[in-house]
Amino acid sequence: MSNSAPASKIVTAAVLIIGNEILSGRTKDANLPYLAVELDKIGVRLIEARVVADIGERIVEAVNALRHRYDYVFTTGGIGPTHDDITAENIAKAFDVPLLRHPEAVRILARQYKDPRDLNEARLRMANVPEGGVLIDNPVSAAPGFRIGNVLVMAGVPSIMQAMFQGVKHSLVGGAPVRSRTVSTNLPEGKIAQGLSALQDKHSDIEIGSYPFYRLGKFGVSLVLRGVELGAVDRTADELKAMLIELGGEILDDANG
Amino acid sequence: MSNSAPASKIVTAAVLIIGNEILSGRTKDANLPYLAVELDKIGVRLIEARVVADIGERIVEAVNALRHRYDYVFTTGGIGPTHDDITAENIAKAFDVPLLRHPEAVRILARQYKDPRDLNEARLRMANVPEGGVLIDNPVSAAPGFRIGNVLVMAGVPSIMQAMFQGVKHSLVGGAPVRSRTVSTNLPEGKIAQGLSALQDKHSDIEIGSYPFYRLGKFGVSLVLRGVELGAVDRTADELKAMLIELGGEILDDANG
Repeated sequence: MSNSAPASKIVTAAVLIIGNEILSGRTKDANLPYLAVELDKIGVRLIEARVVADIGERIVEAVNALRHRYDYVFTTGGIGPTHDDITAENIAKAFDVPLLRHPEAVRILARQYKDPRDLNEARLRMANVPEGGVLIDNPVSAAPGFRIGNVLVMAGVPSIMQAMFQGVKHSLVGGAPVRSRTVSTNLPEGKIAQGLSALQDKHSDIEIGSYPFYRLGKFGVSLVLRGVELGAVDRTADELKAMLIELGGEILDDANG
Repeated sequence: MSNSAPASKIVTAAVLIIGNEILSGRTKDANLPYLAVELDKIGVRLIEARVVADIGERIVEAVNALRHRYDYVFTTGGIGPTHDDITAENIAKAFDVPLLRHPEAVRILARQYKDPRDLNEARLRMANVPEGGVLIDNPVSAAPGFRIGNVLVMAGVPSIMQAMFQGVKHSLVGGAPVRSRTVSTNLPEGKIAQGLSALQDKHSDIEIGSYPFYRLGKFGVSLVLRGVELGAVDRTADELKAMLIELGGEILDDANG
């Protein structure tokens, strides 16, 4: 169970994915969709995501742009032992603090590599943490992530990132969770757009998204209503359905979520 | 076949994904991995990607940050007929030009909606293009994208985006295509990191990426060498393999790509 901020407070986040492999198409990112769903569950609104290459100044610039604007920033990737793992040193630069060898991280690595010869300088780089950073546990492969200020630095390998996130989730303070309801119809977007716009203007506390689909050879649209107050979401959904039926449409689906 | 810039010129790009649905986790983006692979093929290097919510000022800000920095910017999403489709108007704001109803786009829509009553004001919004914009053909569902300056504005639905991209690909001027070779070994990253770093320092024209994997119960690592000169990639790969074998590793895979 996560903590909650006062119900009125909107808690925001950004995700920063670090790695050439996503931008070259070699690897399909799986971390953004995972974090999007998990943050939504705990009332943290993901407002922006960026993918940057393994270029120090781009990492620094993105971290600083995002950490001042959002309540949380989650980074993934670039915390291994090789030369292309440059996240920690650039987070330190972004915060303008020294990069230190974290004693507890060294102990964690020493337990992992029992033969002291295996704990070489490259692996010890994984114990480098910006001053003031607090370790994030890695139950999969030992080498920890860290949190500094509102920035949480995690691994890029999805199974490790997910384990790290599940471990720190309890420490995040979410706002009011967003309730959502999805109504699908067989009408095309262009036919409902005018009424939908009027409905959005009337219910400014509800975010109405319109997502066309093509299913079993026919076009249709899913209308997603999102808001913090379930009653308001449901009232808007009722009005929406009445409008769709009046326009001659069928309600194909209507479900929470 | 795409055009080529002089071999020495590096041609860069960014992708801007516009849409709340990606950030709420409702929809998994498929456009970034598609564009990453396609751009790589034609010698255009994708350096950055951003995902922004349907918030006008965030779209303007991202477009302006990216278009001044990269040779091309590809946007996806937000060009339909509903109230949450706000890409065109914000691209116009980013370029500080008026948003105009494009006569050819109106004709295209009029052919699609044969009954004039179906070509309502909401659908006509899909003919709004910033002044100076050139249409991008949509062979799937008619409503066009557009190009203005170095920014190419495409649909969010993957099948439509892909058809649009294939239609404009010939007009993009790529640089020297990147050749890549991937060598996989059963050694852990921590054991090869030092030698890999030395190899990277020696071959600064080759980008060496290290990607750990877990396969059939064993950890290993894929080493990806990328560069514009095939001979240099191959020479680096030979040195890499000799190093891995000297460290007691096996070469599990060695292939172009």
